[in-house]
Amino acid sequence: MKSISCLVTLSLGFLAEQALASCGHGTSLLERNVYTKRDTEGVTKRSVAISTFGYLGTQGPTHWHKLAEKNYACGNGTHQSPIDLNESSATSVRAGKVKIQIPNVESAEFENLGSTIEVVMEGKGGVTTINNKKYDLKQFHFHSPSEHTFNGEHFPLEMHMVHQAADSTISVLAIHFQLCATESTPLLKALKPTLQAISQPGSIAETGPLDFSSLIRKFTSMQLLTYSGSLTTPPCTEGPVFYVASKRFPIDVETYNAIKAIMKFNSRFVQNVAGEKNLLSGL
Amino acid sequence: MKSISCLVTLSLGFLAEQALASCGHGTSLLERNVYTKRDTEGVTKRSVAISTFGYLGTQGPTHWHKLAEKNYACGNGTHQSPIDLNESSATSVRAGKVKIQIPNVESAEFENLGSTIEVVMEGKGGVTTINNKKYDLKQFHFHSPSEHTFNGEHFPLEMHMVHQAADSTISVLAIHFQLCATESTPLLKALKPTLQAISQPGSIAETGPLDFSSLIRKFTSMQLLTYSGSLTTPPCTEGPVFYVASKRFPIDVETYNAIKAIMKFNSRFVQNVAGEKNLLSGL
Repeated sequence: MKSISCLVTLSLGFLAEQALASCGHGTSLLERNVYTKRDTEGVTKRSVAISTFGYLGTQGPTHWHKLAEKNYACGNGTHQSPIDLNESSATSVRAGKVKIQIPNVESAEFENLGSTIEVVMEGKGGVTTINNKKYDLKQFHFHSPSEHTFNGEHFPLEMHMVHQAADSTISVLAIHFQLCATESTPLLKALKPTLQAISQPGSIAETGPLDFSSLIRKFTSMQLLTYSGSLTTPPCTEGPVFYVASKRFPIDVETYNAIKAIMKFNSRFVQNVAGEKNLLSGL
Repeated sequence: MKSISCLVTLSLGFLAEQALASCGHGTSLLERNVYTKRDTEGVTKRSVAISTFGYLGTQGPTHWHKLAEKNYACGNGTHQSPIDLNESSATSVRAGKVKIQIPNVESAEFENLGSTIEVVMEGKGGVTTINNKKYDLKQFHFHSPSEHTFNGEHFPLEMHMVHQAADSTISVLAIHFQLCATESTPLLKALKPTLQAISQPGSIAETGPLDFSSLIRKFTSMQLLTYSGSLTTPPCTEGPVFYVASKRFPIDVETYNAIKAIMKFNSRFVQNVAGEKNLLSGL
């Protein structure tokens, strides 16, 4: 590897295309709209609608509750996510209490929503069982830097595996990644070859094979930290329960730099302790 | 290196000691108070006062202006730092316009202020000349993740070299670091052996030799981005002029993880475009 590659930043731009059709899917709280479009050269391709919120200025987390009435909880909710995970803010769950079954897949849709990059897992048969209740894996996506902190420390990357049960309740399995010079997490490395194809907000590409087995084995063999919080993006709806891996998973430098170059910055600031006043309330 | 080292976090705690004497120094806007104390075993040692602000909850950036009247600018100023650096927010300065002379030193005081880790350079003879005006290098310190973003992208670490002129005006030279598997920045690697000794907030240690030559050569050979902003910490005083390296410097995984384990999270959120309403004003 030439050292210059450490300093390369992908160039991003917005797609300017003609809409042909659209369809919505995703969880009831996190809708995605996929369009089939024809570009300027007449080639038909699919793209995903770009998020209407952002992470900077008056589109960013301090103003989400001002962007739309439905985002009221973002600036007023008292059980918001992310939080600082520590002895008093989260409960420790013994290893194995959360059971995960995600079949390996030949490929999955990888989307750049502008606000995150997301792998669509709906219909792939991933199921997590918590207290005998089944949650279907809908998608997993990333935040950089991490949203949750551990005793105040942040990490370079956080993954959210978003699940929904038949009664619409949401559970999120969260994993934090720490840079490591000697090892990485196979699932992240498997996504890397497809990153360039989704460098532009709105773009969609197909990943190669994804093997979840080592990630699941590791996640289910360690204690988890759990608490009831909210979506970390608008509309910041409260109710989702987080199960956060208590130890970090490794990520290599190249994969981290490539993910960060696309997501740029997409981390909501740490919210107040559950039940206390929203940090933005009455400022 | 054993791979487990990627997942190690330093344990931090607060010093509980008896104050014997104190003296203040630093720039007029960023005071530091150093105490000579006797610990529980009767050993006399020096420590630095821990910052009265933080980065989480009601001690954090959304509430700095509520912590003290003198912090009014943090929640009301319209030329605040950090900002997103882009074509419209900052001006490009040609390479060589900023002249830096920092003699190599045998050692310097390295302090953990709770809010950052800082190398004291007062009296070491470091001088930066901008438009024929001389600024003395007072200290340099770090933020992780980066405070300024580049076209929306954040970086894992940012260094601020804080200078003050005879008329008290402040200029800050800023460098962003990008993780790199094949190289690092010698100045950061030179600080690494002393990090463990300042793992506790309030602690002070002496660095080994610091050689600034390659850092200066690189900084002064690239275009810089400049704008007039503010301190990025309370009291958020406006006036400081930033000169930010337009390209990133490399940092290795081990040094990055060690710095982050101590600083944990110390990045103010990106402020609004200069002249626009403060993001926290009227929420």
